[in-house]
Amino acid sequence: MKLLRVGTAGAERPALLDEDGTTLRDLSDLVSDIDGALLADDGALERVRTAAAGGGLPVLEGGQRIGAPLAGIGKIVCIGLNYHDHARETHAQAPSEPIIFFKAADTVVGPEDTVLIPRRSVKTDWEVELAVVIGKTARYVESAEAALGHVAAYTVSNDVSEREFQIERGGQWDKGKNCETFNPLGPWLVTADEVPDPQALSMRLSVNGETRQDGTTADMIFPVAEIVRYVSQFMTLYPGDVINTGTPAGVALGQPEPKPYLRSGDVVELEIEGLGRQRQQFKDA
Amino acid sequence: MKLLRVGTAGAERPALLDEDGTTLRDLSDLVSDIDGALLADDGALERVRTAAAGGGLPVLEGGQRIGAPLAGIGKIVCIGLNYHDHARETHAQAPSEPIIFFKAADTVVGPEDTVLIPRRSVKTDWEVELAVVIGKTARYVESAEAALGHVAAYTVSNDVSEREFQIERGGQWDKGKNCETFNPLGPWLVTADEVPDPQALSMRLSVNGETRQDGTTADMIFPVAEIVRYVSQFMTLYPGDVINTGTPAGVALGQPEPKPYLRSGDVVELEIEGLGRQRQQFKDA
Repeated sequence: MKLLRVGTAGAERPALLDEDGTTLRDLSDLVSDIDGALLADDGALERVRTAAAGGGLPVLEGGQRIGAPLAGIGKIVCIGLNYHDHARETHAQAPSEPIIFFKAADTVVGPEDTVLIPRRSVKTDWEVELAVVIGKTARYVESAEAALGHVAAYTVSNDVSEREFQIERGGQWDKGKNCETFNPLGPWLVTADEVPDPQALSMRLSVNGETRQDGTTADMIFPVAEIVRYVSQFMTLYPGDVINTGTPAGVALGQPEPKPYLRSGDVVELEIEGLGRQRQQFKDA
Repeated sequence: MKLLRVGTAGAERPALLDEDGTTLRDLSDLVSDIDGALLADDGALERVRTAAAGGGLPVLEGGQRIGAPLAGIGKIVCIGLNYHDHARETHAQAPSEPIIFFKAADTVVGPEDTVLIPRRSVKTDWEVELAVVIGKTARYVESAEAALGHVAAYTVSNDVSEREFQIERGGQWDKGKNCETFNPLGPWLVTADEVPDPQALSMRLSVNGETRQDGTTADMIFPVAEIVRYVSQFMTLYPGDVINTGTPAGVALGQPEPKPYLRSGDVVELEIEGLGRQRQQFKDA
């Protein structure tokens, strides 16, 4: 299933994208929202599935804003330098174990919302990432084999980053990762049953129509299952938590000087195979 | 005012500590919870104040668990190495600007709840900290003078830290800061009007009755007003967000070998002048 949230910011309705790939169905009568509680509730998900198969769900009119596909996000755990090609382009050694940093849930916006370039920013950068949404609490998960059972869904994430804030202003990356609007998410959650192999998804990002990232999740240093297992040794993952699993090569930071950091008016488009696409215009805060 | 939340975990009631320092009053009829929405609402806070002065609020029976004094916490921004004496003891240079890392809101527990030592941890450490609670949205605050107007309240925080996870496992501190139960908060929020100078508070922490930290917020490298101003240049602070403002000298990490990291059964007690005290027993996860 493809689950999404449609409507003005703060007043989104839960919805489902039909198998035809275009019709939106209103889920408001079935579920209160697309959130961790729903993703943890196999019965509720099964009722949505049954209703969808029955074909009787009301159609939502098109042309509305698409919001972030998940409400009530707990934490967003981010994995740094998790693609071989991205580690190489930034002249970093491939990490021997996953690097963890955080984004706050309040950075999340919809997949087509405007992204704000922070004041005094000169190095705002893009990062297409596979986002993993937790459906079952993960605490000291014993094996990578067991880990995928804690994943409810996948979606697209743009882990927007201010490189000066991140790297040159005091040592911890969080400072450049948590600016307002810095985590476009969506367009929809694709439930895990429709993503048989999360390590075989192509991903692309362009800026003003020029391809900048063209990678595949096959290049991840630590695959999704290992990430979930590993993170759960250090913190508990709850339903509604999100993991941004890292970005492939092609970010502005990895380019020769002058690096093509984002400027007001730039348009970033990104997509992951089977998970949909995003499009954001960047503007000065 | 001293605002707190009393009752079993997940079912706490909003309460007020009387001026006598012992009687608890039930606020359930006045406010739905102690959260960012309440702290942002001057009118609601004034109604609580008036009702408290009237003396007619119902008394809550004593002996109940005290929960964390804030519900619906957004993000917890933490400031690293913010005391001169703590920077010295860890052989770190005093930072030229604040170091920012994060704790997830799901790490928060009550001030007397059990804290879990993570599995495979050998370096679990304590950190008494002044916690600042945001009441008004802070975004590009222009001056330190204006910054304190965004602070609703203060409380005590134990920024529990696993030093091996934090420092020796891949480079970003968040990995050692977000273990389950790693942020005891409380016992109560003291509204900012009752803390005329947040830079003149003595603070203490003991382990099994032995004093380990004995400092003062006067030793902060970046004072609260500057922290709020500074952080607001990189991210937006919302009502219900918390800032852990750093810890003074005396943590286990700063001791000679063998460093006295926490073991199952250890009891940590901490307090800040005028803000109350905490007591936690540590146990293996």
